[in-house]
Amino acid sequence: MISVIIAAHGNLADELIKTAEMIVGKQTDIWSISVTCEQGLDTVQQTLESIVRKIPGNMEILVLTDMPGGTPCNVACLVASQERIGIVSGVNLPMLISALNWRGGLALKDLIPLVCTEAKECIFDVKERLQRIYHKN
Amino acid sequence: MISVIIAAHGNLADELIKTAEMIVGKQTDIWSISVTCEQGLDTVQQTLESIVRKIPGNMEILVLTDMPGGTPCNVACLVASQERIGIVSGVNLPMLISALNWRGGLALKDLIPLVCTEAKECIFDVKERLQRIYHKN
Repeated sequence: MISVIIAAHGNLADELIKTAEMIVGKQTDIWSISVTCEQGLDTVQQTLESIVRKIPGNMEILVLTDMPGGTPCNVACLVASQERIGIVSGVNLPMLISALNWRGGLALKDLIPLVCTEAKECIFDVKERLQRIYHKN
Repeated sequence: MISVIIAAHGNLADELIKTAEMIVGKQTDIWSISVTCEQGLDTVQQTLESIVRKIPGNMEILVLTDMPGGTPCNVACLVASQERIGIVSGVNLPMLISALNWRGGLALKDLIPLVCTEAKECIFDVKERLQRIYHKN
C-alpha cells in the first residue's frame, strides 16, 4: 500500500478526498494539506514533514499537488529528497481515484505514470467526443 | 466573456472556485453545482437548466465537470444541446485558472482546446522533470 498526501491551496485537498471517498469508499493512509495565502513555505514544510514522519519508513508516499510552481508543489519538492516519495502535479478527481484504486498493488514508480495517464485521458471536449462516437456509428 | 459553470461531486466545484479566486482574484459569471450521491439526474438537470436560463442568451458557456461518466458530466450532456454550451471533463485547478484567464478574449471553440492542453501540461511526475532539467544543465 502506498500512502497518499494531497497538498493544495485552500480546502481543495480535503474536498478532493471527501469527493473521492463518495465514489470509492472510505480510505486509510491518506492525508491532506491545506495551504492558505498567508502561510509561508516554512509552515507548510513543517506540516508536510510531520505527516511524512508519521508514515512508516517502509511505506512509499505519493504526493499529489494542485499545480506546478505553487507553494504546495514547491514545498513537496523540498521535502521529497527521500527515494520513497513521489510528486505529481495537476491533481484532478480521476487522478486521485486512480491512485486510490491502484496503490494497493503497484510500486510508486509504476503508480506515478499510471495516474498521470489516467488523469490526462479524462480531460477532453465531451461534446466533440460524443459527436465523433455517434458520427462513427 | 464566457460564463463558467463547474459541475462536480460533493463540494469540489465550490472549493475549486474559492481556490482559483485565491490565485486569480474574485470572479463574476461563474457558477457551481454540487452533486451528492442522493440526488437524481432530474434534480441536477433542473439546477443546471436554471443556471443556464440566468445567463444572457448571447453569452457562451463552458461547463467544467469532474470526471467523464459521472452524474455531473452526464447531466451536462443532457442540457448542452445549445450550440453556445461546451463541456470539458477532468477539471483541475490549472484548467479552471486557464479558463478564467482566457475567457475574456476567446470564443468557446478556441477556449476549449486551450484549457484541455493547459490542464494536461500541468500533469506530470515533478521529481522526474526536475531531475531531467538539472541533468541537462
